[in-house]
Amino acid sequence: MRDLNLDFDDAAVGSQMFRFAEELFPICRSITGEGIRETLHRIGKRVPLEFHEVPTGTKVFDWTVPPEWNIRDAYIKDQSGRRVVDFRDNNLHVVGYSTPIDARMSLSELKEHVHTLPDRPDLIPYRTSYYSESWGFCMEEERLRRLPDGNYDVWIDSSLEPGSLTYAECYLPGETDDEVLISCHCCHPSVANDNLSGIALATQLADHLRGLRLHHSYRFLFIPGTIGSITWLALNGDKVDRIKGGLVVTCVGDPRHPTYKRSRQANALIDRAAANILRHSGQPYRIADFIPYGYDERQYCSPGFDLAVGSLMRTPNDEYPEYHTSADNLQFVRPEALADSMSLYLRVIDVLENDGSYLNLSPKGEPQLGRRGLYPAVGAQGAGLQLMARLWVLNLSDGRHRLLDIAERADMPFGTIKEAARLLTDGGLLAPVGT
Amino acid sequence: MRDLNLDFDDAAVGSQMFRFAEELFPICRSITGEGIRETLHRIGKRVPLEFHEVPTGTKVFDWTVPPEWNIRDAYIKDQSGRRVVDFRDNNLHVVGYSTPIDARMSLSELKEHVHTLPDRPDLIPYRTSYYSESWGFCMEEERLRRLPDGNYDVWIDSSLEPGSLTYAECYLPGETDDEVLISCHCCHPSVANDNLSGIALATQLADHLRGLRLHHSYRFLFIPGTIGSITWLALNGDKVDRIKGGLVVTCVGDPRHPTYKRSRQANALIDRAAANILRHSGQPYRIADFIPYGYDERQYCSPGFDLAVGSLMRTPNDEYPEYHTSADNLQFVRPEALADSMSLYLRVIDVLENDGSYLNLSPKGEPQLGRRGLYPAVGAQGAGLQLMARLWVLNLSDGRHRLLDIAERADMPFGTIKEAARLLTDGGLLAPVGT
Amino acid sequence: MRDLNLDFDDAAVGSQMFRFAEELFPICRSITGEGIRETLHRIGKRVPLEFHEVPTGTKVFDWTVPPEWNIRDAYIKDQSGRRVVDFRDNNLHVVGYSTPIDARMSLSELKEHVHTLPDRPDLIPYRTSYYSESWGFCMEEERLRRLPDGNYDVWIDSSLEPGSLTYAECYLPGETDDEVLISCHCCHPSVANDNLSGIALATQLADHLRGLRLHHSYRFLFIPGTIGSITWLALNGDKVDRIKGGLVVTCVGDPRHPTYKRSRQANALIDRAAANILRHSGQPYRIADFIPYGYDERQYCSPGFDLAVGSLMRTPNDEYPEYHTSADNLQFVRPEALADSMSLYLRVIDVLENDGSYLNLSPKGEPQLGRRGLYPAVGAQGAGLQLMARLWVLNLSDGRHRLLDIAERADMPFGTIKEAARLLTDGGLLAPVGT
Repeated sequence: MRDLNLDFDDAAVGSQMFRFAEELFPICRSITGEGIRETLHRIGKRVPLEFHEVPTGTKVFDWTVPPEWNIRDAYIKDQSGRRVVDFRDNNLHVVGYSTPIDARMSLSELKEHVHTLPDRPDLIPYRTSYYSESWGFCMEEERLRRLPDGNYDVWIDSSLEPGSLTYAECYLPGETDDEVLISCHCCHPSVANDNLSGIALATQLADHLRGLRLHHSYRFLFIPGTIGSITWLALNGDKVDRIKGGLVVTCVGDPRHPTYKRSRQANALIDRAAANILRHSGQPYRIADFIPYGYDERQYCSPGFDLAVGSLMRTPNDEYPEYHTSADNLQFVRPEALADSMSLYLRVIDVLENDGSYLNLSPKGEPQLGRRGLYPAVGAQGAGLQLMARLWVLNLSDGRHRLLDIAERADMPFGTIKEAARLLTDGGLLAPVGT
Repeated sequence: MRDLNLDFDDAAVGSQMFRFAEELFPICRSITGEGIRETLHRIGKRVPLEFHEVPTGTKVFDWTVPPEWNIRDAYIKDQSGRRVVDFRDNNLHVVGYSTPIDARMSLSELKEHVHTLPDRPDLIPYRTSYYSESWGFCMEEERLRRLPDGNYDVWIDSSLEPGSLTYAECYLPGETDDEVLISCHCCHPSVANDNLSGIALATQLADHLRGLRLHHSYRFLFIPGTIGSITWLALNGDKVDRIKGGLVVTCVGDPRHPTYKRSRQANALIDRAAANILRHSGQPYRIADFIPYGYDERQYCSPGFDLAVGSLMRTPNDEYPEYHTSADNLQFVRPEALADSMSLYLRVIDVLENDGSYLNLSPKGEPQLGRRGLYPAVGAQGAGLQLMARLWVLNLSDGRHRLLDIAERADMPFGTIKEAARLLTDGGLLAPVGT
Repeated sequence: MRDLNLDFDDAAVGSQMFRFAEELFPICRSITGEGIRETLHRIGKRVPLEFHEVPTGTKVFDWTVPPEWNIRDAYIKDQSGRRVVDFRDNNLHVVGYSTPIDARMSLSELKEHVHTLPDRPDLIPYRTSYYSESWGFCMEEERLRRLPDGNYDVWIDSSLEPGSLTYAECYLPGETDDEVLISCHCCHPSVANDNLSGIALATQLADHLRGLRLHHSYRFLFIPGTIGSITWLALNGDKVDRIKGGLVVTCVGDPRHPTYKRSRQANALIDRAAANILRHSGQPYRIADFIPYGYDERQYCSPGFDLAVGSLMRTPNDEYPEYHTSADNLQFVRPEALADSMSLYLRVIDVLENDGSYLNLSPKGEPQLGRRGLYPAVGAQGAGLQLMARLWVLNLSDGRHRLLDIAERADMPFGTIKEAARLLTDGGLLAPVGT
């Protein structure tokens, strides 16, 4: 059995992840440019990373790596010269990938470039326009309403030029080349749950796993969304077949219940592992079927790859009102939620590492557990959970069931079945079969 | 894609079907004789028909074509000579296939030949006795109760003589010999939903389809129930294997919700098509499992044939109180219901015609829909139905899924998936595979 | 068809079983010794038995046949010499397999050897300690509370010596060597539902079946729990493969609803037979999945055997408050419940005996049932249950469905389908295929 050190210090680890999210929050990230480059650099201070720069114009399947976007400042000034909208206050104010602009225009002209959320007038929306050149501002509906008629000075000091797309990998070699993929998009500016929570968790998880001896190799991808996973897949066709399962890490810090979104395969080991862990997590949860929408699982699960990659989240993107607004901030993300998500990730990985087939060495009738101290003596009524787990493991260890199969049929936590298998193996009643 | 002209004029088509039902209502039909012959003749004025006469005594599997029955008049007269029951008022008054009778008898003798519905005393039941020679009258329970004791003159001017069983076919050749069977019993006298509604719909559907270019050939059978389908199967053994699916058309004009009764195969293409159409029809509906009772699907689904023939109805026979009574009349059938049923039939046929396999030509990662105008730009949150349909079609067009498979997994109307496939094919991202 | 004489006299048979349970109640049984030997002797007066004595020390798989235990008397006397606990009042007072003791001790010393049910202070628990040498008493919590401090004389006149384990078999040869196993533990002292009810039913069933001509051979095992089934399996390895299905008989006399616990195979013929019988029994019931806990099905369903053995009970052990206490007595068991259980057992066996494959000799279209008197004439609406059963049998007798398959798809009692098959066979429309 491989020990994943599941009982880490929740409070310490939660607060460590939260502080890293705080550190990264102010940076203006996008799918290319200095913001994501700086972010990856800071991750690299915590876990060993290999950095990649893919030049603008590189063909990646049906896509082309776009120009690199950088932004220094942006504002809207009123006639008095006051910045009524200021990029320095909140980087959500500028539509991502906005082209530069330096112009004076009337309010009505300006409004054609302004995005608000009329239903939530106090929030700034998060908007981008990666592949269609334009510029724009995002602001609170109530701020827009207060702007008087008149002319405004509009200024975006950005550049959209040949450069490169930046991503990074953390590769943790295990006993075999079979890989588990942990993928995390790093392209969003100051929004916290989506996806500073994912960045913090993936970094913490890589740091946790690199101290352990594991069966699988683990590949962590820190990439821009969509174009990043497409780029990685296009440039690493030789590695794809090694991926036996994976998870897209996003929205793991909000205080609501966990959700697992199945892979396209629907019933792969990763899917069954996540279902078992959530079912026995002691909290409400949801298992959602795969749909070809969401984050980078869309690319990993495209029909040309069909990888067993799901997504373990808390509240999925699109399903919480704070999503892609200025309300998705550091108040929305909680250290306890991050720590709980971390624990769920580790437990899922525990299944991948420890699922295996065992053989009952005494398969005819039950072995006499009592004389081995594995059965209660002068019996109270009923069998406790631990005894039932032992009986299930013995009953189903016939070479046709693995531990997760047994956990599923017994409707028990994988960890309880694993522990029973360990005890029975120590007691000489069970032996591992192959892998 | 084949265009079935799904958006016909509901009001016009509904009223056209209703008027045809009105025209046919007065005719006294049975499983043989001039009534059904005249009915088929009138259908033949609307769509091209091939007429068949199968002589009395012909062996058809375990059955024998019965004598031809015709009736000219029938009555019960009281002692004053007044017709207290008169065939000219309602042809339901005579049990179908009644032998001739000319006798005077007491009320108590007469009662042995009278059928009523004691629970619904104001309705005349519809009864037949095809294979056991006898005579009888049907009347309202309350009319029977009012008859005073005394003698009555009983007169049925019918004949049961060697002749023939009449049926007709409308065959619409398509691009292939694969056939879709539309079967409709035409043997009931003045009852409207069962089955003038079916006759009107089948006639209208044949008329609609014959103007279109279709993949399948369509065979419409206008036959007497049970003996008609058995006769057709017995005489057309060489054609049976061409039937890839079919529907028995009955009870399609009542104002209640649609019902699909599965074929014996339970999950044939026709079954899945009907389930998809009803599920997304925007109205309550029911999917009923196959049972070896009902109408001619019993014969098509007998184990020696096991054809994929279901029945798309509104309220099934036996499940509405008007069934097989004088209350199943032209007031019970509605033009709107007929039009809605017609639309459902066409949409099911649309699935049969357009289900097919396509290949995603850009299967690695998602293709860039945005630069093809197939993806919303500066994005609002969430993906609309049309975008989701495109993503599903791309995701599952891997050679192992057909359009209906995709509609089922996406839980979307077939039509939406079909439209997405058409757009993606036009955009060069998808290509049809084989048939 | 084999006639199992399903319509026995419920009242007579129920009272006969109950009287046998009454007769056996006072005997102090255990897994070895004179109590079980005497019990088997009395069963042997009713049905032919073969007795087996397996010497102490015999190795049976992972287990060893234990010493033989016998007990003559036991008590706790207070300082006045009064028996405050007396084995002669209730044999549950002594922990099964208690070693002999003859000592005076304080109340507090004594209490370490006393078992009570604090939550149900008026009941004596039933406890054993077969494989860990110790002694103990069981009593009512309220009796214990009333014992004053002071010294007590403790006396158990038992012996634990080399001897043998006793069990018996009743083998009823059928037309084939395929066996049905009926297994019943006989090791509990004065507790009635668990398992004098099982002993009484198994004895009655053996007596009922031995008068009949049957396809399967029937093997009834009257054995001590756990060690008995393990011993039988260890000594009869050559016979195990003949067992095609079986039932563990226990807890069949309480007044609550029946429960069937599936075999490990979950969907074996015995499992499906029991499910059909319970579903159509006209009373509430429960189907429970297999778990590797309970009675001897644990051994028969161990992975080295994986026999299709379930358990047909009323309330399962562990699930009724009287279980393993002095409240599981002759007042708790009812003659009517025993008779109902007997009927359920017979009906399940009826499925095993009569399930078979038939061929519709007229598979193209329906045969004309009317001229064979198998179809109602001038029809009322709807098809009755008997007609529907005939139509289902005809429709599915295609060589791929057996009668139980048909009963399941038609959702009808097996007996109704069996009767329809008999009538159709007599009518020349159906013929049996192989076995």
